[in-house]
Amino acid sequence: MALKARVLYDFNSENPGEISIRENELVTLFSEEELEGWLEGENSRGEAGLFPASYVEIIRDHITASSNNGLSSLKVKALPPTHSQRGLGAGSGGDSFHTSQGSDDDWDDEWDDSSPATDVPQGLSSAPPLYPVTTSLPGRRGSAQQHQQQAKSSATVGRNLNRFSTFVKSGGEAFLLGEASACVRDGDRICVVMGKHGPEWQEDPYPFTCTIDDPTKQTKFKGMKSYMSYGLTPTHTNVQVNRRYKHFDWLYARLVERFPVISVPHLPEKQATGRFEEDFISKRRKGLIWWMNHMTSHPVLAHCDVFQHFLTCGADEKAWKQGKRKAERDELVGANFFLTISTPDVPLDLQEVESKIEGFKTFTKRMDENIVVVNTTINEFARKQMAGFKKEYQKVGQSFKLLAQAFEMDQQAYSGGLNKAIAYTGETYEAIGEHFAEQPRHDLDPISDLLDLYRGHLANFPDIIHVQKGALTKVKDCPKQEGELHNRCNIISCATLAEIQHFHRTRVRDFRSQMQHHLRQQIGFFQKITAKLEDALQRYDEDQ
Amino acid sequence: MALKARVLYDFNSENPGEISIRENELVTLFSEEELEGWLEGENSRGEAGLFPASYVEIIRDHITASSNNGLSSLKVKALPPTHSQRGLGAGSGGDSFHTSQGSDDDWDDEWDDSSPATDVPQGLSSAPPLYPVTTSLPGRRGSAQQHQQQAKSSATVGRNLNRFSTFVKSGGEAFLLGEASACVRDGDRICVVMGKHGPEWQEDPYPFTCTIDDPTKQTKFKGMKSYMSYGLTPTHTNVQVNRRYKHFDWLYARLVERFPVISVPHLPEKQATGRFEEDFISKRRKGLIWWMNHMTSHPVLAHCDVFQHFLTCGADEKAWKQGKRKAERDELVGANFFLTISTPDVPLDLQEVESKIEGFKTFTKRMDENIVVVNTTINEFARKQMAGFKKEYQKVGQSFKLLAQAFEMDQQAYSGGLNKAIAYTGETYEAIGEHFAEQPRHDLDPISDLLDLYRGHLANFPDIIHVQKGALTKVKDCPKQEGELHNRCNIISCATLAEIQHFHRTRVRDFRSQMQHHLRQQIGFFQKITAKLEDALQRYDEDQ
Repeated sequence: MALKARVLYDFNSENPGEISIRENELVTLFSEEELEGWLEGENSRGEAGLFPASYVEIIRDHITASSNNGLSSLKVKALPPTHSQRGLGAGSGGDSFHTSQGSDDDWDDEWDDSSPATDVPQGLSSAPPLYPVTTSLPGRRGSAQQHQQQAKSSATVGRNLNRFSTFVKSGGEAFLLGEASACVRDGDRICVVMGKHGPEWQEDPYPFTCTIDDPTKQTKFKGMKSYMSYGLTPTHTNVQVNRRYKHFDWLYARLVERFPVISVPHLPEKQATGRFEEDFISKRRKGLIWWMNHMTSHPVLAHCDVFQHFLTCGADEKAWKQGKRKAERDELVGANFFLTISTPDVPLDLQEVESKIEGFKTFTKRMDENIVVVNTTINEFARKQMAGFKKEYQKVGQSFKLLAQAFEMDQQAYSGGLNKAIAYTGETYEAIGEHFAEQPRHDLDPISDLLDLYRGHLANFPDIIHVQKGALTKVKDCPKQEGELHNRCNIISCATLAEIQHFHRTRVRDFRSQMQHHLRQQIGFFQKITAKLEDALQRYDEDQ
Repeated sequence: MALKARVLYDFNSENPGEISIRENELVTLFSEEELEGWLEGENSRGEAGLFPASYVEIIRDHITASSNNGLSSLKVKALPPTHSQRGLGAGSGGDSFHTSQGSDDDWDDEWDDSSPATDVPQGLSSAPPLYPVTTSLPGRRGSAQQHQQQAKSSATVGRNLNRFSTFVKSGGEAFLLGEASACVRDGDRICVVMGKHGPEWQEDPYPFTCTIDDPTKQTKFKGMKSYMSYGLTPTHTNVQVNRRYKHFDWLYARLVERFPVISVPHLPEKQATGRFEEDFISKRRKGLIWWMNHMTSHPVLAHCDVFQHFLTCGADEKAWKQGKRKAERDELVGANFFLTISTPDVPLDLQEVESKIEGFKTFTKRMDENIVVVNTTINEFARKQMAGFKKEYQKVGQSFKLLAQAFEMDQQAYSGGLNKAIAYTGETYEAIGEHFAEQPRHDLDPISDLLDLYRGHLANFPDIIHVQKGALTKVKDCPKQEGELHNRCNIISCATLAEIQHFHRTRVRDFRSQMQHHLRQQIGFFQKITAKLEDALQRYDEDQ
């Protein structure tokens, strides 16, 4: 009997030799042997080829159940190439972990924005909202965690079959099974407190913000290489530091591996070519400003060592390398992150947690779907205003000017004032057309930027939810009600709910202020048009 | 040698057997024999067929010049069918003059708006501005004049070769040649005075206006026939009279034959089918209001007997018929109209007149061309606002509502106010879309209605100019400087310039007020939008 597997997540083939598979589909395996994280088989449409091993779950008959144990001893293999890596050469793909962890010499390398050797989700904000794919993409949430300690196995409950699930990769499972251990200093402690609306991160006692100046173009190697440098000035030091996009990138990788259930804001899209073009630079800067805003307003992220190092370390190369090395050797990543969390005294009700998480999952799914529609609509609206609306108003303006030109052929003195007024009205409409074309950058683009940032968060949450759900499932499956297991599950739940609460608060704050900004801009725009028309109207009273 | 003819005016073939010919083109005639006003020949593109005899001028060699005199004795033949008649059956076309002059019983006939037997230019306002065609179309300016006295021939200067030219048809030639004679009462006298800007009609000492109520649907023959009745209330009597479109139509025909060099405003378009539809009724009423405005504000037209009869005669059938018969038997039409005109003491300088007329001709041509562009543009703009603009704003509104719906899935208390505000913003944008769709009827349609009216005037002026130019040419050709001929030419020039002056005054008045109206409406529109957005913005402060 042929070996079958059930597909856990949608996978779309992108290269020759691969096949697309759909969630819940049954595929026939040609062999149980994985090849660098890939399996070969045939899907239900009769297509044969490769697909990521971690996207499917092998089905074994009850008769062969005894051989099941063999699976749990599956070694951790190389991850299947991620979407972003697959498009690149095999060599650079393999280097990515190394680069992300970085050697001290990296900063002097030709490791530029356009380098393929950085492992940040790219193009995420413009991708369609494939929720299950987002949930499962291996390597999306910091592929560096895989070297986490997963050796000790003293747990009384079984391990996950899928060694590539986020629950495992994030260190959630290891922590739950009591395998995490590290020295936690007081300064590393993160408090979840019980707020009005449930668990929340303890409020930031030393809030600060950070400005990002217009980037400047820098060159090195006698002008052979050029890059953009951003001046950052955090309010708590008021000292400017200069950072390149690759520094943000490095920081992002550190944060993702450091904080398993925190939604680290995505960096704005990378762009390999034309990255010095004004529009792109301006858009990336706005994206970085939003990113910074979400970093500094997050009570946990804002004060973590690596971010502070990034914000405050000056031009001293040695100090920088020291902090960099420290961050890369940080022990409190993944599973150990949970060791740093202090929870409220009274443990949460598991059922309530489950219902809250379920509600949030539904919410994020809907929000993700709907902001895609909003984004498409306002981008289309912006395009229409910049093209069609502008053209229509300008055509009307031109036709009024034509009318005035015809009228000017009549030399009656009493007609002169009218002719000028009509010509002026024509110019007014042309100007209104220009205003329509300029307006989207003031009131639609900012919403679009915000939606991009939120699409990043929404792409993070399936993994976060996955970790919490993995813990909850483990606890439910546990034959004896182990106190320690419950405690650890409670820690994960508290952190997850605190992060969800933080998301909601930030969301309400951001969308309120952004909608207000949008409306104020629109009001200003229509007032400007009204004033222009009033000005034109006045011309009809002159010279009468 | 084949007989050739030079084309005087463009003619577009509309029926099988006809060929199109262009101004200045040379056509080869198959025969000099006309067949009911048509000639047969071949145009320069080698097409053979029929074209109106009056649109060409036969070219005779110098050798055959002696036979040229034969041309001047050509008898007045039936006019070639006009464009509007040609589309109809031969029978009804032939009846049109009869009907236009009307028997007393006509009012009880089934002579309804949709009857083909009325000879009013139709669809003129929507036709492209074919200036030369407009100049020449026989029958356009009241075909009833052809029965004018043209018998007496005591003039010392030659007659026009083209017996169908407007100069001849209008009675201009007959008047100039001293052939007009009628009894002019004091009440019929029309004064041209010398104003600041040249000759003008003496100001109306008893100005009045006239309102047109919403039309009501009337039926007769036990509901078998239905028609719309308009209630007219002139301010100088303040008594309402009821008139049907056919009454306007009859009046129009009387005015056109009565006043050769006055631009009688065209009636709004007729429409055979669907004439009870709300939009059409509303559009026709607006057209009639504009028409009435131009009638009552014209010093000559406003007080002429037939118009006063139309405005003031009540439901007394006998009185109506009496006035109707009187108008139809009016002797002071065509050539005799000029007998009623008193001119300023000092005659005009012929050269100056010529230059003014030439300037006006250029002006009208340009104005006609340009208002076609304006009309097309604003109609397209209206269409865009009613479709595209509306759709875009509504799509944005709907997408905001979707965002609010997603947010409502989150039950956080502090999110409620924001959710409502975003939903309200969505509704606001939907409403703004509706406003965009409704706006054109307030600020673009009125301009379009005005342009329609002016396209009618511009179509009238080529004929008016033609009459004046015909007179001027005659005077220049005159071997002896005949005092009487000069006097009569001066009368025609004075009347023409007075009419042109009136046109300019009315144009400046109308376009000033209409542009002001347009801008005020636009300002109100954008203020309304601004207020709606401000209302939406306030919602974000509530419940916070």
